[in-house]
Amino acid sequence: MTSEERRYHVNGELVPASAATVSVEDRGFAYGDAAFETLRAFGGDVFRWEAHADRLARTCETLGIDHGLSTSDLKGRIDATLAANDLADAYVKLSITRGSQPGTLDPQPEVDPTVVVIVKRLPRGGLDGEPPYDGPATLQTTKTRKPSSRALPADAKTHNYLNGILARLELRVTGADEALMLDPEGNVAEGATSNLFFSDGAALRTPSLDGPILPGVTRKTVIEIAESEAIPIEEGTYTPDAVRAADEVFLTNSTWGIRPVKTVDGIDVDGGRQRGQPDDDGEGVAGPLTTLLSRLYDLRIEEEHYDGERL
Amino acid sequence: MTSEERRYHVNGELVPASAATVSVEDRGFAYGDAAFETLRAFGGDVFRWEAHADRLARTCETLGIDHGLSTSDLKGRIDATLAANDLADAYVKLSITRGSQPGTLDPQPEVDPTVVVIVKRLPRGGLDGEPPYDGPATLQTTKTRKPSSRALPADAKTHNYLNGILARLELRVTGADEALMLDPEGNVAEGATSNLFFSDGAALRTPSLDGPILPGVTRKTVIEIAESEAIPIEEGTYTPDAVRAADEVFLTNSTWGIRPVKTVDGIDVDGGRQRGQPDDDGEGVAGPLTTLLSRLYDLRIEEEHYDGERL
Repeated sequence: MTSEERRYHVNGELVPASAATVSVEDRGFAYGDAAFETLRAFGGDVFRWEAHADRLARTCETLGIDHGLSTSDLKGRIDATLAANDLADAYVKLSITRGSQPGTLDPQPEVDPTVVVIVKRLPRGGLDGEPPYDGPATLQTTKTRKPSSRALPADAKTHNYLNGILARLELRVTGADEALMLDPEGNVAEGATSNLFFSDGAALRTPSLDGPILPGVTRKTVIEIAESEAIPIEEGTYTPDAVRAADEVFLTNSTWGIRPVKTVDGIDVDGGRQRGQPDDDGEGVAGPLTTLLSRLYDLRIEEEHYDGERL
Repeated sequence: MTSEERRYHVNGELVPASAATVSVEDRGFAYGDAAFETLRAFGGDVFRWEAHADRLARTCETLGIDHGLSTSDLKGRIDATLAANDLADAYVKLSITRGSQPGTLDPQPEVDPTVVVIVKRLPRGGLDGEPPYDGPATLQTTKTRKPSSRALPADAKTHNYLNGILARLELRVTGADEALMLDPEGNVAEGATSNLFFSDGAALRTPSLDGPILPGVTRKTVIEIAESEAIPIEEGTYTPDAVRAADEVFLTNSTWGIRPVKTVDGIDVDGGRQRGQPDDDGEGVAGPLTTLLSRLYDLRIEEEHYDGERL
């Protein structure tokens, strides 16, 4: 299926991707005034829909977008888009904008929302599958910092994504895959599109939601898995040096799941190997904790979406 | 002329407003990944085009949008849109997005930009004219603060406008017209869509561009006028209390020009009157400095765009 043949869902209708448009006066275009979720479909159904729907509702509440659509209505639009494209394993993006409104910047209480569902094929990944990312990540600390939640609430997932784009622009110099972004105080926050975890042997650690951190659905799933396996897990405040010195580092988001990190600011993550031990394929090696968590994460998907067919 | 009949300029073509759309995959929609300028046309030509074109170029440089279009090409699209709508006195919005690109967040160096020009009729305002705003402004300090320029450069004018929208949402409670937004340290920055000036009798003051302040074209014009009239003008760092205690306060942007402020956080701006002197019409009175600067600003427009016909 070529990109031209794909069909998207725009305001209640399935349309060819090339005809999927919004007005130039839509506030989603004019101001990035929109909430969204990125999801993965496995075996024809989206993973952790309830968690995504909850976060979307919170984002809309923060933005004051009273769209009046039910969760099942939104889910139905996703299902219809997947079916229309005959997609089982896919990337899904669901966006809700405040629509077009009279006047300029002031948002009006009466909302006629614009709802858009975009899908594209992604490899299934998971157990024995090709991962949906291009190898372990290289991570680079950026000068671009996350905004304070007093300026832009970090728990709202919106179309205002220039902060992450500016961070990614900095990576052109080093060729790194993902930005390691710091909070206003210089502590570690997250990637441009991912949450960060690292392990120093004593515990698995991830920046606390007290900082400007997106409450990632995959982040939450990883914490749940760690807790259920009695792996020590700490949400805290960490310096970039703590990440650079870690034994294992990985990133999470809905598209990647768990993606190992092989270097941080050009420094090899040793993956739990003895320091100085050769890294034969130069690709780095996911350490034992990253490997274990990845396997447990994949198992959940396998059980929930494929009736455990690869188990 | 109704809104339906208006024509906008989208990617080199004039189209009816109702058919003026962008792809849902355009990065302007997906991420607010776009630069823009708001301009005023007077007598068929936009005011201070060079200053706007310069700032647009700087924004595009910050965002790494190498659009390849000349300033005269962009100006030509604005002129064509004004002519197609038979508009002499108008609001103009010119936007340039990074267009649609393969992949997800990472911006690609090769840009096929989306260029949009929107226009609408505005009263001419100025000398003896009805102002293009709804009376003197009421100003309210908001909890929503401006982001640090380390997160989002304040001198880039982009479609990431949620920070201002969140500030304006707070005004629903008080019914104020404009947000008085503070910088991360709690000093005065600017409004959601305007720059701020105030006078305390000793000097005209405006927050310095060292803070997270948009370098407004009208702001710059006002500073030039003050300097040419030997009015003491200071760009500095100010507390909200300094604004609340000011004799005169006004806002500037390209649409409003100079708009007087009548209250700050519910406190009357005394407009240079003796404190306690009655304010007969309850509308506040623009103080003598605001009145003088407005008249000089209007004179420039009159001379540059109307051959001084109202002089």
